[in-house]
Amino acid sequence: MGSDSDLPVMQPAADILKEFGIDYELTVVSAHRTPLRMVEYAKTANARGLKVIIAGAGGAAHLPGMVASITTLPVIGVPVKSSNSIDGWDSVLSILQMPNGVPVATVALNAAKNAGILAAEIIGTFDEAVSAKIAAYKTNMNDEVLTKVEKLKQQGWENKFD
Amino acid sequence: MGSDSDLPVMQPAADILKEFGIDYELTVVSAHRTPLRMVEYAKTANARGLKVIIAGAGGAAHLPGMVASITTLPVIGVPVKSSNSIDGWDSVLSILQMPNGVPVATVALNAAKNAGILAAEIIGTFDEAVSAKIAAYKTNMNDEVLTKVEKLKQQGWENKFD
Amino acid sequence: MGSDSDLPVMQPAADILKEFGIDYELTVVSAHRTPLRMVEYAKTANARGLKVIIAGAGGAAHLPGMVASITTLPVIGVPVKSSNSIDGWDSVLSILQMPNGVPVATVALNAAKNAGILAAEIIGTFDEAVSAKIAAYKTNMNDEVLTKVEKLKQQGWENKFD
Amino acid sequence: MGSDSDLPVMQPAADILKEFGIDYELTVVSAHRTPLRMVEYAKTANARGLKVIIAGAGGAAHLPGMVASITTLPVIGVPVKSSNSIDGWDSVLSILQMPNGVPVATVALNAAKNAGILAAEIIGTFDEAVSAKIAAYKTNMNDEVLTKVEKLKQQGWENKFD
Amino acid sequence: MGSDSDLPVMQPAADILKEFGIDYELTVVSAHRTPLRMVEYAKTANARGLKVIIAGAGGAAHLPGMVASITTLPVIGVPVKSSNSIDGWDSVLSILQMPNGVPVATVALNAAKNAGILAAEIIGTFDEAVSAKIAAYKTNMNDEVLTKVEKLKQQGWENKFD
Amino acid sequence: MGSDSDLPVMQPAADILKEFGIDYELTVVSAHRTPLRMVEYAKTANARGLKVIIAGAGGAAHLPGMVASITTLPVIGVPVKSSNSIDGWDSVLSILQMPNGVPVATVALNAAKNAGILAAEIIGTFDEAVSAKIAAYKTNMNDEVLTKVEKLKQQGWENKFD
Amino acid sequence: MGSDSDLPVMQPAADILKEFGIDYELTVVSAHRTPLRMVEYAKTANARGLKVIIAGAGGAAHLPGMVASITTLPVIGVPVKSSNSIDGWDSVLSILQMPNGVPVATVALNAAKNAGILAAEIIGTFDEAVSAKIAAYKTNMNDEVLTKVEKLKQQGWENKFD
Amino acid sequence: MGSDSDLPVMQPAADILKEFGIDYELTVVSAHRTPLRMVEYAKTANARGLKVIIAGAGGAAHLPGMVASITTLPVIGVPVKSSNSIDGWDSVLSILQMPNGVPVATVALNAAKNAGILAAEIIGTFDEAVSAKIAAYKTNMNDEVLTKVEKLKQQGWENKFD
Repeated sequence: MGSDSDLPVMQPAADILKEFGIDYELTVVSAHRTPLRMVEYAKTANARGLKVIIAGAGGAAHLPGMVASITTLPVIGVPVKSSNSIDGWDSVLSILQMPNGVPVATVALNAAKNAGILAAEIIGTFDEAVSAKIAAYKTNMNDEVLTKVEKLKQQGWENKFD
Repeated sequence: MGSDSDLPVMQPAADILKEFGIDYELTVVSAHRTPLRMVEYAKTANARGLKVIIAGAGGAAHLPGMVASITTLPVIGVPVKSSNSIDGWDSVLSILQMPNGVPVATVALNAAKNAGILAAEIIGTFDEAVSAKIAAYKTNMNDEVLTKVEKLKQQGWENKFD
Repeated sequence: MGSDSDLPVMQPAADILKEFGIDYELTVVSAHRTPLRMVEYAKTANARGLKVIIAGAGGAAHLPGMVASITTLPVIGVPVKSSNSIDGWDSVLSILQMPNGVPVATVALNAAKNAGILAAEIIGTFDEAVSAKIAAYKTNMNDEVLTKVEKLKQQGWENKFD
Repeated sequence: MGSDSDLPVMQPAADILKEFGIDYELTVVSAHRTPLRMVEYAKTANARGLKVIIAGAGGAAHLPGMVASITTLPVIGVPVKSSNSIDGWDSVLSILQMPNGVPVATVALNAAKNAGILAAEIIGTFDEAVSAKIAAYKTNMNDEVLTKVEKLKQQGWENKFD
Repeated sequence: MGSDSDLPVMQPAADILKEFGIDYELTVVSAHRTPLRMVEYAKTANARGLKVIIAGAGGAAHLPGMVASITTLPVIGVPVKSSNSIDGWDSVLSILQMPNGVPVATVALNAAKNAGILAAEIIGTFDEAVSAKIAAYKTNMNDEVLTKVEKLKQQGWENKFD
Repeated sequence: MGSDSDLPVMQPAADILKEFGIDYELTVVSAHRTPLRMVEYAKTANARGLKVIIAGAGGAAHLPGMVASITTLPVIGVPVKSSNSIDGWDSVLSILQMPNGVPVATVALNAAKNAGILAAEIIGTFDEAVSAKIAAYKTNMNDEVLTKVEKLKQQGWENKFD
Repeated sequence: MGSDSDLPVMQPAADILKEFGIDYELTVVSAHRTPLRMVEYAKTANARGLKVIIAGAGGAAHLPGMVASITTLPVIGVPVKSSNSIDGWDSVLSILQMPNGVPVATVALNAAKNAGILAAEIIGTFDEAVSAKIAAYKTNMNDEVLTKVEKLKQQGWENKFD
Repeated sequence: MGSDSDLPVMQPAADILKEFGIDYELTVVSAHRTPLRMVEYAKTANARGLKVIIAGAGGAAHLPGMVASITTLPVIGVPVKSSNSIDGWDSVLSILQMPNGVPVATVALNAAKNAGILAAEIIGTFDEAVSAKIAAYKTNMNDEVLTKVEKLKQQGWENKFD
């Protein structure tokens, strides 16, 4: 992430990777305040054994795109709605609208959790254990909704707010 | 892709996969006109050996997100700027802003080529031959720019439009 | 609705249908977390005697459009301004901008009450009792304003905030 | 429609109603240039036997909402992207964002065809012949896609642009 | 104004007219809930001696434009940022983007005070006493800034927040 | 107007004033290229007998607001969609969103004709001959629509494009 | 700045100039409430020894552009997100989108601190002492991040919120 | 500039610098395709005697901000409206919305000419000859408008399009 102030937004990415039993490192790499560290980090990522990079940043968010320009690993970008952001549009557009040749896999505004799941899905393409956990996770989501549906039917929704 | 009218926009995804020597299937799956085919397609994707799905659609673009809700494979979404689109905002937002649990790896508006490269990067996480091709591709991009820089220096930019 | 967290926003739709004496069912159907339930729900809606479907969802809101792609019933879409929504634009555009062949009758952001009234108007096309109730409802709205006008005239608006 | 210059955009609504065998009247009612005719038109619509009203207008599009404020019939609004429109946003928002009590069933920008289909779906709630035609229409859309899928598979997409 | 809930926003228009010694009436006229009253109000405005009409409304704000379509008086529109407004864009665009032939003099979002001043300026075109008061008002604004400038210079801005 | 390149957009304002028999002057005053001329022009406008000022400008359009800050006359602002404008939003917002104390009567994007009509309406507040012409103009607009309605009914709309 | 209410937003510009040991004056100049003072201020800026002007304003923010039209000094514009601003878009666009010939060096929304740094960078083009301070400032920013990285590694991010 | 395809947009920056007699270098530096060259270019800029850097880029435009993160020179950013840009918003926001500590002096969309003038103004802060040329340039702009005003008065604007 581009700043330690992004940690509350980015933490769910770490949480979900932990839940899926996937090793990760979490650190601060600022494209604008530590550009050379950023270059170094991206250059060595592959050799250090990383498979996917999740980069979250806000405002004129250059971290995901710059990392993607240096590494050959897939880079997932999380647009962070920072203070003074113009409703998040700046973060979204400066991560999403990458030129031909350098894609960033962008997820929704502040959607660090989805970044973690997407990273897991990517790892799941060659690691069946992870793929199975994602399948279980999706089944679980489905079942949780069905349980709520059942409750809603039995109790009636009118009672929900009483 | 959601419609065969999207083919001109989506073709570069196929072209780049071919260039990287990655097998792919290209077909039309419409979330809105063939919802049951879409469900079937997404359900069987994993078993048929697919590793990544690229889904392009325009307007209220539901194909990428719906496919992602059914499969455990990573899904790359390409927002297509269709006619009557409101400047592409509809396509971008209805692909990008997925709820927690169901990520779509969104690329830039009409950026099918980047979708192809991202797919290759994902496959490159477990296939070193592909990873090496991406590295070569990036080196090549770099060199092309340097060649242009050299030309610009020698010829002068003033002559460029003469 | 796509999630039980949408209930506070969607409840006015149920309230107004109750007020008009129209039977309804209220449940949770998530396009992304329960895609197969969603397909089943939409497929059987007609046979179960439903006349209109009101679907509310936020963010990349696919529920109204996907239900509309499966049923032949009119589908009313309520864009919900969920947390992390980009000011509601995502919900609005991903419900409104449906492709040719699959309309969704979209109402204003969070306007579940209007969705209920629109459903009543649709039922009123063949049920004169309902149509009469809508007429009475509109007359009542008109009268309420006139009463306020009268009060404002008598008391003076300056006293309103004293 | 608000102006005869909207006819090219609005015509597909008439075409599809004709295709479904539904009687309709097509005329010009301008909220801003003929406000009294508009009031009269909306007031008498029900008595003249209309079941649904489709209103298309552009810019600060007041026709659909004003008609909806007077009649108890369901009103479908078609935002028209007129010249000098600000990318269609004005038409969309001034039709969609109706206050509580007066819904307009809004369809996508310029989506007159979908307005026609939605009108048919509404009529189909009490007219099974129409409902059956919509079902056939949807099946046909589905089959057309499948035919294209088949062709694409046999001919290969590479040949499509040769 | 379209609703008595708009009173807190619209009140400054009345206040400033009072300050300028201009007679006014303040009432509620809803385009959508009391369309016929609205028509009547606009039709008779001229004969009742009104010179300018200030109309404030939010969301799909039709009141200013509809009044303007009926009267020949200048109509000033105040876009109100109501709850569930999409950041005020809906109010602004549905008041501002009037078609040729029916102008609305639109002021800034929630800028009822400016609507009052603009009304005074219009009356000032034929009433020199009012025109003189506006000139004094502007001089006063200018002087207030100069006083603050002087204070800032003497006290230093650092002390301002101490 | 801020530039003679705005003449094609602004000309309809002059045309309509001519049609209404209202004297006017048409000139170029650039806030950014001739700031002192602008100040001079605004300062002397009242004394030279002007009653209303129409100011059209594009991009970061400062002319209307700056003129309004200097004169006590009502100022009508026409947002011009110049080349390199961001869809006209810049022109609209930098004219419309004036601070308290300095209103600009903003009309729709490129709506010089409406600016002319609004100017006439303002003059009509004290000049009954002009007011009568506006009434006639509105009646004429109404009648033109009615004539088209009649034609459409007799010829059928299907023949319109044959 | 255009108003003393902008002081809390603009203060960081003064703070950073102080930190860099650069003399400055801080005052209120309103384009709309004190247009003649604004003209005077801009005209005399150069002769009074100013090297750069930082102008902050909100809404239809004309101050930076108008000052830039009169002086030959570089003008830095700070878009201020004032109350009733439309999400800051008005401030940004009315400062940024200046016509050819009259640039304003625009910084991010509310980014007065960056305006101060940019002013220092401009002064640093001819004053090496200032340039050295900026270099030190940037090194310091870099080091602060590295310290945080180190801490995060040692303590673990999980403990951060415990 | 980020790509030689940006040359037609960026050329006016070079033209104006030439006109002001200011030496410049013009080259291609791509943040995404040649990230290491970009780092090198920015690092050495100061030592090579550059005083200001103008960086133009489109889409997710990272070049200006990344260069600004490495150099202590003032960096002027030109948002380029590239093909597939979302109306230029992406370019504008990803250049403008820089975080605290790393300003980019952003000019209007495609406004390379203004970038050149701004660069000249910056150089003019220590080079009186350049400052005098800018003053002359502004006087000339003013005179050109006055000439047009005179012509318009003599010939009448009606003849302009004859």
